[in-house]
Amino acid sequence: MTKPRPDSAAQALAEATARAMWARDRAAQALGIEIVRVAPGRALATMMVRRDMVNGLAICHGGLIFSLADTAFAYACNTYNRNTVAAACHIDFLNPAKEGETLAAAAVERALSGRTGVYDVTVRVGRRTIALFRGKSYRIAGEVMASLEEAAR
Amino acid sequence: MTKPRPDSAAQALAEATARAMWARDRAAQALGIEIVRVAPGRALATMMVRRDMVNGLAICHGGLIFSLADTAFAYACNTYNRNTVAAACHIDFLNPAKEGETLAAAAVERALSGRTGVYDVTVRVGRRTIALFRGKSYRIAGEVMASLEEAAR
Amino acid sequence: MTKPRPDSAAQALAEATARAMWARDRAAQALGIEIVRVAPGRALATMMVRRDMVNGLAICHGGLIFSLADTAFAYACNTYNRNTVAAACHIDFLNPAKEGETLAAAAVERALSGRTGVYDVTVRVGRRTIALFRGKSYRIAGEVMASLEEAAR
Amino acid sequence: MTKPRPDSAAQALAEATARAMWARDRAAQALGIEIVRVAPGRALATMMVRRDMVNGLAICHGGLIFSLADTAFAYACNTYNRNTVAAACHIDFLNPAKEGETLAAAAVERALSGRTGVYDVTVRVGRRTIALFRGKSYRIAGEVMASLEEAAR
Repeated sequence: MTKPRPDSAAQALAEATARAMWARDRAAQALGIEIVRVAPGRALATMMVRRDMVNGLAICHGGLIFSLADTAFAYACNTYNRNTVAAACHIDFLNPAKEGETLAAAAVERALSGRTGVYDVTVRVGRRTIALFRGKSYRIAGEVMASLEEAAR
Repeated sequence: MTKPRPDSAAQALAEATARAMWARDRAAQALGIEIVRVAPGRALATMMVRRDMVNGLAICHGGLIFSLADTAFAYACNTYNRNTVAAACHIDFLNPAKEGETLAAAAVERALSGRTGVYDVTVRVGRRTIALFRGKSYRIAGEVMASLEEAAR
Repeated sequence: MTKPRPDSAAQALAEATARAMWARDRAAQALGIEIVRVAPGRALATMMVRRDMVNGLAICHGGLIFSLADTAFAYACNTYNRNTVAAACHIDFLNPAKEGETLAAAAVERALSGRTGVYDVTVRVGRRTIALFRGKSYRIAGEVMASLEEAAR
Repeated sequence: MTKPRPDSAAQALAEATARAMWARDRAAQALGIEIVRVAPGRALATMMVRRDMVNGLAICHGGLIFSLADTAFAYACNTYNRNTVAAACHIDFLNPAKEGETLAAAAVERALSGRTGVYDVTVRVGRRTIALFRGKSYRIAGEVMASLEEAAR
C-alpha cells in the first residue's frame, strides 16, 4: 500500500474547487475552454481558435487570447478554495494565432503573501509563444465551493 | 452652403475604416459588441453582459470586459486607416458588472509618435467605473481597408 | 470677508500632508525632486536630469524617470492624510530625456473606491511626452502625519 | 587543454558589453548598483538600501527598487551587443525593503522575437520577494559597444 504524498490533500482540494467553478462558468464553457489540469497554484487551460473568434485579418481577437489566459489565472489562484479575484492584469502580445489553432495557457504562481498573489501565464501554440500574461490576485471573503452553493440556491 | 470643418476628411476616414473593420470582425459581432461612434484616435463601444458571459458568481468574466475594452482600443488606433495592432495591454478591475448590465468602453488616444501609440479606455456601467485599460499600439505595414479587401479575396 | 471655498479644508490637508512627507523623504530630496503643488488626488513634481542620472548614451535612466513619476503618484494618493502605498505601477517610455532637461510629472486620480485607487501620471519636458505612468494604490492603516511623527521618535 | 564551451563566445560578448555599458552608466554607479554577473539574456544586479534611498517611513523608495530592476533588465537585454531600450515596464510591489538591506535583482529573458523581447526581473532580499518586474525591450539601430565609443568622442 502506498502512502499518500504529503500534498495529496492540497491536490484533491484544487481539483474539487476547479470542478465546482467549472460547473457554473458559462463564459469559459461558451468559449470552448477546457481546464486540462490544476495543482495548488497552477492551472493549464486550452482553447481552439474558432471562426467566430477571429477579426478581419483572420487572426484571433486579442481579447479572447486574454480571456483564455485570464481563465487559467482564475483557476490557478482559486486552487486553495478561497475566493480570489483578479485585481489587475497585464498582457504582452508576441505572435498572432490563426483560426483552427489550439492555444494552451499555463498559469503558475509567482508570489503569494497576505491577500495578494502574482501569477504568470504563458500562452502558446505548440512551441510558439503567443502571449505573456501576468495577473495580480486579491483574496476576498468566503470559500469557493461554499459561495458557489449559495449562488446556486 | 456650409464649408466642411477642417477635420471632416479625417472623420470620414475614421468612419469608413470602422465600417470596413466591423464587416469582418466576427469576434466582436459574436460578443454582441456595438461600435457606437469613432473619431480620429477615439472610439466608443458597448456590450451587454449576457447569460453566457458570467462566471460562477454571476458577474461578468474579466476576459470579456477586457475584450470590450480591447475592441474599443483597436477601433480607436485604426482610425487613420493604417494597420495597427496591440503590442501590450494593462487592465485594472475596479468593480464587478452583473448579468444584464450594459458596459460602455470609451477609448482615447494619449500619445502617438512614430509607430507606437498609447490609448486609455474607461469601461463604465452608467457612472460606475468597472475597469481602466491602457493599450500600447504598434503600426505595421499596409492600410486597413486595403488589407481587408485582400483578406476577403 | 470672503467665505472659504468648500474644498479649502481638503486643500489645506493635502498641503500639510505633502509638507510632512517631504520633510522626511530623503530619496526624493537626493534626486532633486521638487513638489510644485498638490491638491486632493493630484500632485505636480519636477526633476532636472543631472549628470549622474544619465546612462552611457547620455539619456536619463528610465528608473529615474520612473522615480519622479512614482513620487508624484505617492504625493497625489496621500493627499487625504491616510497612509497609502503603491501596489503596482506600469510605465510606457515614449521619448528620451537628455541631461540638463527638466521633467515635470503631473499625477491625477482616475479612480478611488474602497482601499484602492488608480492614478495616471504624465511625464513631460515642455510639450514633449516622455512617459505615461499608471499606479495602483492601496490604503493601509494609519494617518500620514501621525505615522511620520511616530517614525521620527 | 579544455575545449571552449559552445556558448563561450556569446558569454564573452555579454561580459564585454556589460563592462562597456557600466563604464559610462553614471546613474547605476551613483545608486551603488553592482552588476554581479551577466550571461546571454540574463543579468544579476545588487543594491544596498542607503539612508538617502528611504522615504519618511524608513522603507526603500519604490522608484529606486524599480531603478535596480530596470538596470538588471537593461543589462540582460543588451547582452547581444545590439542597442536595445525599454519600451514599457510593469512592477508589482510585494514587500517593503528597509534601510541597510541589500536587494538582488535577477533578470531572465522570457521571449525574444524580431525587435522585441520580454524580460522578467525578481527583486529579493534573501528569500523575501520584494518586487516582480516585467520589461518589454525594443531593439534600435547600432551596436552597444560602437555606440558607446561614439558617445565618448
